[in-house]
Amino acid sequence: MSHEPLVLGIDAGGTSTRALLSNSRGDSLGFGAGGRGNPVSAGAQRAATGVLTAVEAALATSGASLAEIPVIVAAMAGMQSSANADWLLGPLTERGFRGTLTFEADLLAIYFSGAAAAAGYAMVSGTGACMIRVEDGDVAGTADGLGWLLGDRGSGFWIGQQVIRAVAEDLDGTGAGTSLTRRVLEHYDLATTPATREGRPEALWRLVATAYDRAPIELAALTPAAFDAAQENDAVAIGILREAGQQLARSLRAILRAPGPLVIGGSVLSRAGVVRDAFLATLGEAADALVLRNVGDGAVGAAMLALRAHGTAPDETVRERLTATLQRFR
Amino acid sequence: MSHEPLVLGIDAGGTSTRALLSNSRGDSLGFGAGGRGNPVSAGAQRAATGVLTAVEAALATSGASLAEIPVIVAAMAGMQSSANADWLLGPLTERGFRGTLTFEADLLAIYFSGAAAAAGYAMVSGTGACMIRVEDGDVAGTADGLGWLLGDRGSGFWIGQQVIRAVAEDLDGTGAGTSLTRRVLEHYDLATTPATREGRPEALWRLVATAYDRAPIELAALTPAAFDAAQENDAVAIGILREAGQQLARSLRAILRAPGPLVIGGSVLSRAGVVRDAFLATLGEAADALVLRNVGDGAVGAAMLALRAHGTAPDETVRERLTATLQRFR
Repeated sequence: MSHEPLVLGIDAGGTSTRALLSNSRGDSLGFGAGGRGNPVSAGAQRAATGVLTAVEAALATSGASLAEIPVIVAAMAGMQSSANADWLLGPLTERGFRGTLTFEADLLAIYFSGAAAAAGYAMVSGTGACMIRVEDGDVAGTADGLGWLLGDRGSGFWIGQQVIRAVAEDLDGTGAGTSLTRRVLEHYDLATTPATREGRPEALWRLVATAYDRAPIELAALTPAAFDAAQENDAVAIGILREAGQQLARSLRAILRAPGPLVIGGSVLSRAGVVRDAFLATLGEAADALVLRNVGDGAVGAAMLALRAHGTAPDETVRERLTATLQRFR
Repeated sequence: MSHEPLVLGIDAGGTSTRALLSNSRGDSLGFGAGGRGNPVSAGAQRAATGVLTAVEAALATSGASLAEIPVIVAAMAGMQSSANADWLLGPLTERGFRGTLTFEADLLAIYFSGAAAAAGYAMVSGTGACMIRVEDGDVAGTADGLGWLLGDRGSGFWIGQQVIRAVAEDLDGTGAGTSLTRRVLEHYDLATTPATREGRPEALWRLVATAYDRAPIELAALTPAAFDAAQENDAVAIGILREAGQQLARSLRAILRAPGPLVIGGSVLSRAGVVRDAFLATLGEAADALVLRNVGDGAVGAAMLALRAHGTAPDETVRERLTATLQRFR
């Protein structure tokens, strides 16, 4: 290994974690993945395991040691205060780390995965929906991100809940017929029987029991059914997806100021189709001032944040090199 | 005690249970209350304790024994199939019961608490929202009752969720200002501070954390804040309550057929005001065919169902006598 200073960016999520080792030129020198890395949702011990697995894998692919790394930035939701860093700083120090550990918002890593400019926007619509305005390289405004009970309008959960409600209305005969019904019953392995109970189809009773047997957030798994049905011109599915796009646009509009890049993560808005069309139509002229870019995750952005924390100001060339050289590890 | 046949009606709910002992004339001879009585939500053992407490209290006030009672009807949600009656029939038999135990829908007991006619409607909007059409003394159609995740439109939960979302939007500056914000922050004992984090008020972060710390259904506790705010002409609160009334009317309309009594339980629709006005306005002419009656619970109706199960057809005189003579026990 060279003895040039290295930085480590960690993109720690609710289901998986990525660690990317970089030099100041933006060469991806090591990459690793791990399990759940957010202590808020996974608990400190499990999150530490997830993060350290990714870190050790990144070090192993590069041959570097933690002692060579002056700066680590860990991007994760809800951990922007570094007050309780011990759960991660402790094990890192045990493994030889002597540098500075900083926490940043997960959406800031998404942003810098897609843009090097110090100002712009990032939004994620996956299971949840959240968006930020970036100014001077930091979070200056946030919209939604309030979770499935209070917000997440236009998210995968939101779509899934609209889908299952539409299916309930179809089964009940109070709403429009939709192919979502067949798709959702199949998704849950529920038979369609002609049997009724208290004037309602047996399938509806079973659907209700099945939905409440699971965590609410699992409704997000019904989102693909909506995309598939919309592809086949199902009017109910198209209506739901269109409203999802409108909701996402309304949330973003609440924090829109100057023109800039809009970096998009998550599966709901990243693909072309009804949601994206409705999103852009609702933004109207404001969309012209945005340059849309899709990113898969915040690994590159976390490394960009680590380079920024190390005192360099990584530009678009560095971001592109990080992205290109990361490919060989995936 | 006389040796005329007695019947026992049990109105078993998710939070409390009532038992009412009656003769065929409709004289309330004994009444008792107990705790949670629904095995679906409380578990079989706890529910049995709740029901038996009410039953034993009703027997104690009357001096009757279970051996004198040929018919018991237990009205509760989700237990219309008597397939799994053992949790209750077992302990009743141990205590000397030799008669017939039947389960009925909780809403059917609500219905017969307010009407003796064999056909009509009953609806409850409390924490949840459900409505039934009654034909030949039995449930012929059901609307909503799908729970907080899939339905319960216009219920206390529904109102509470709209309230906290409106408060989040107010705090975020993306929605209209509303006195609900002050009321809800007070409800949760949260201070209003000028502090912000990531461009959002500290109070919003705390509100989100507080809401997710609790069971979702507890949002129903915010309903009184909406009624209070509407009383003081808060436009946001009035809008929420108006939509609640519209949602309830739409659900009812899905099962409306012939004219008849509409028996109303639950706190959302039973009081005069915005919800009820919007409910009636949305029903339009259909409202003219309905005779609205408020009831507090299903105790009288459970006794009416027990009399029906015993082969008598209790009329309006019996229902009124049950209601009047029950007063001395409460």
